Amino acid sequence: MSIRSSSIAAHKRARGKIEMLPRVRIETPADLTMYYTPGVAYVAEAIAKRRELAYELTSKGNSVAIISDGTRLLGLGDVGAYAAITVMESKSVIYKRYAGIDAVPLCIETRDEDRIVDLCKNIEPSFGMIHLEDIESPKCFSIQDRLNKELNIPVFHDDRHGTAVVAIAGVINSLKLAGKRMRDVKIVVNGTGAAGLGIIELLKTAGANRIYALDSRGLIYKGRQKGMNPFKVRISEYTNRDRVDGNVSDIIDDTDIFISAVPSYKFERSNISRMADKPVVFALSNPDPEISYKDAKRGGAFIAATGRSDCPNQINNMICYPSIGRGLLDTRARSLNQNILYTAAKQLADTVADELSTDNIIPTIANNNPIDFMPDLAGAVGEATFRERLSRLKRVNRRSITDGTKRRIERYTDIERMIVGKGRPD
Amino acid sequence: MSIRSSSIAAHKRARGKIEMLPRVRIETPADLTMYYTPGVAYVAEAIAKRRELAYELTSKGNSVAIISDGTRLLGLGDVGAYAAITVMESKSVIYKRYAGIDAVPLCIETRDEDRIVDLCKNIEPSFGMIHLEDIESPKCFSIQDRLNKELNIPVFHDDRHGTAVVAIAGVINSLKLAGKRMRDVKIVVNGTGAAGLGIIELLKTAGANRIYALDSRGLIYKGRQKGMNPFKVRISEYTNRDRVDGNVSDIIDDTDIFISAVPSYKFERSNISRMADKPVVFALSNPDPEISYKDAKRGGAFIAATGRSDCPNQINNMICYPSIGRGLLDTRARSLNQNILYTAAKQLADTVADELSTDNIIPTIANNNPIDFMPDLAGAVGEATFRERLSRLKRVNRRSITDGTKRRIERYTDIERMIVGKGRPD
Repeated sequence: MSIRSSSIAAHKRARGKIEMLPRVRIETPADLTMYYTPGVAYVAEAIAKRRELAYELTSKGNSVAIISDGTRLLGLGDVGAYAAITVMESKSVIYKRYAGIDAVPLCIETRDEDRIVDLCKNIEPSFGMIHLEDIESPKCFSIQDRLNKELNIPVFHDDRHGTAVVAIAGVINSLKLAGKRMRDVKIVVNGTGAAGLGIIELLKTAGANRIYALDSRGLIYKGRQKGMNPFKVRISEYTNRDRVDGNVSDIIDDTDIFISAVPSYKFERSNISRMADKPVVFALSNPDPEISYKDAKRGGAFIAATGRSDCPNQINNMICYPSIGRGLLDTRARSLNQNILYTAAKQLADTVADELSTDNIIPTIANNNPIDFMPDLAGAVGEATFRERLSRLKRVNRRSITDGTKRRIERYTDIERMIVGKGRPD
Repeated sequence: MSIRSSSIAAHKRARGKIEMLPRVRIETPADLTMYYTPGVAYVAEAIAKRRELAYELTSKGNSVAIISDGTRLLGLGDVGAYAAITVMESKSVIYKRYAGIDAVPLCIETRDEDRIVDLCKNIEPSFGMIHLEDIESPKCFSIQDRLNKELNIPVFHDDRHGTAVVAIAGVINSLKLAGKRMRDVKIVVNGTGAAGLGIIELLKTAGANRIYALDSRGLIYKGRQKGMNPFKVRISEYTNRDRVDGNVSDIIDDTDIFISAVPSYKFERSNISRMADKPVVFALSNPDPEISYKDAKRGGAFIAATGRSDCPNQINNMICYPSIGRGLLDTRARSLNQNILYTAAKQLADTVADELSTDNIIPTIANNNPIDFMPDLAGAVGEATFRERLSRLKRVNRRSITDGTKRRIERYTDIERMIVGKGRPD
């Protein structure tokens, strides 16, 4: 059977990859008194007096809303909210499996920026965090920036934040192996969609000084008139300081690191010989990278990374977003910032310290046991959230977040054996 | 320990009464291929081509959104969205326990009618049904009526529909016991909030001819000027045909059935002696009924019913809403109408046929095993949905809905033993 037909058949059997299950029993009169009427009224009353109690008495503090309008779904483009449901369900499975987080997919009909912002603001009471996913750019940036200001819970963007964290972890380790420093190297980033922009932003936070960004019109520079948006204007302030105009071939000479996130783009192998000593190439488009791992290596790449699971150095945000969510929820975060993301990238880079090699620059689901690095990542994010004064808590213990994440992964492993292992009678 | 403190303590231990759990395993490279990339892209593509496939390939068809703005929460009144979370979680537990439905509480910040309508419309792709709860009236009526027109999934209202179904089931059996007919009896309904209005609407569907409705200004009649709204105007068209003005004591003579859903109102025992032979009194306010079961019986009531679990004849919508949801979801209903609700009421009334008595007019959680009546109720609702041409399916088998509901309840009982029984390590 092809992947297509076996995947559709498996989804037909599952009829939904997630389900909402009780954590308490409501059956006997005593249960009803405790968890329904009249007991629940006292709980509601207590929360009405002090809303923060929702973190202690309800599921708010462990719940994430995954929001998508389906306008930029995977490699499929604009296929709409109904098609998005199945992808968001997979994200939810991964949130629970790797961090014990309850993630609710909300695939939404509107594509209007104001309405999406409005919706996220209105559902804030029920959730500890918002996860934006597969929304077209640049709309997704302004939605996220506006929510970041207007909500009192963090707003995470799957590509802008998640992919950037994994990519920058890869960059940090590539530099270690090449014996170069972030502030010295020339980095070219092709693409200013969600992943591209997020990578540029996080490279800046990481101290990169010589970043060049390209979109479909070529190099972005301060004062460029055509094809700009407020987000490109913002990056033009700190990238391409010498205001070079042109395309990849005009800037590739002496480049230390080339990163691309443009599905339609093909990166010619010959470019690599023009790059600096020990050239690093990240081709992140899925499922077809801008240059294959093999071709990049053949072309002389010191390190090559793609989004594919069948090659070394897979850059996939599933290794980081559950733990980032865990760290933010466990600290009851009010918001998320670049320093927290940079901490996450550094922690992820440290994870492979002992086995660091050109073909092992970041942990992967295939090579590493999640319980060996995800709990530490959650702890690091939690500590950073507290340090950045974005936690609602008076004290945060990094170790207890790490240990709690471990316990949640273990608990889920037990539950999985019981439920998923037993098949689906319903 | 008081109920208050033990209930708050139990909620603190649970930290949320519900959780989102995977139904599939996403761990090995083969799992990832099947349920994540690249497999999920094929599933998304198939749904993009035909949205109805979301019912077969995603959790849409088993998911309900429970929407509340917390403006009329239990007996507490307007306590806001944060306080509402805990109540909606209990509703979600009951949906799963008694019908295997995945219900997501969405407690929302806005109180604006247009914004609430907008939100429900925007989340439609992810859900098979909307459940409105504890939203102040008359706003809740117009929200529901608008959604009923604009959405392609049913919109159920907890009080307007749920309480009405149970109350009308009680009325049907009370008439059986009293040897009277629906079309002949004089029925007085005190209250035009969500429950009161819903009861009046469903009594009309059931064929009642002599209904009198009261609000805080007294009897409603056609042409009344003060304190009206479009919903009261609508009921004034078919109630109080003789246009009596006044309050309860002006209309109670010869009344066969008195139903009240006004928390502040007290129904004097002396009124009962003025009622018709074999008087029936339903005092539905919670936790303090308008007249206690005991006082109503002492006053001469042939049948008395309240919302309390510690007296006979408890009128509580938890015995019907999970099954109604099940029947609607299993037929992929496009909408919900009065005939479906009336079918549900008749089915519920039939449930106690064998043990029918003045102190057992409807099934209760305490007296009946849910598996003995809820699956049949789901089957009846499913059949009615098909008959009303509101199902998306070409064929509907009542028996298979009933059997499926049984299996879901049994499956959940197994899962409960495994998960809830093991305590909560996270």
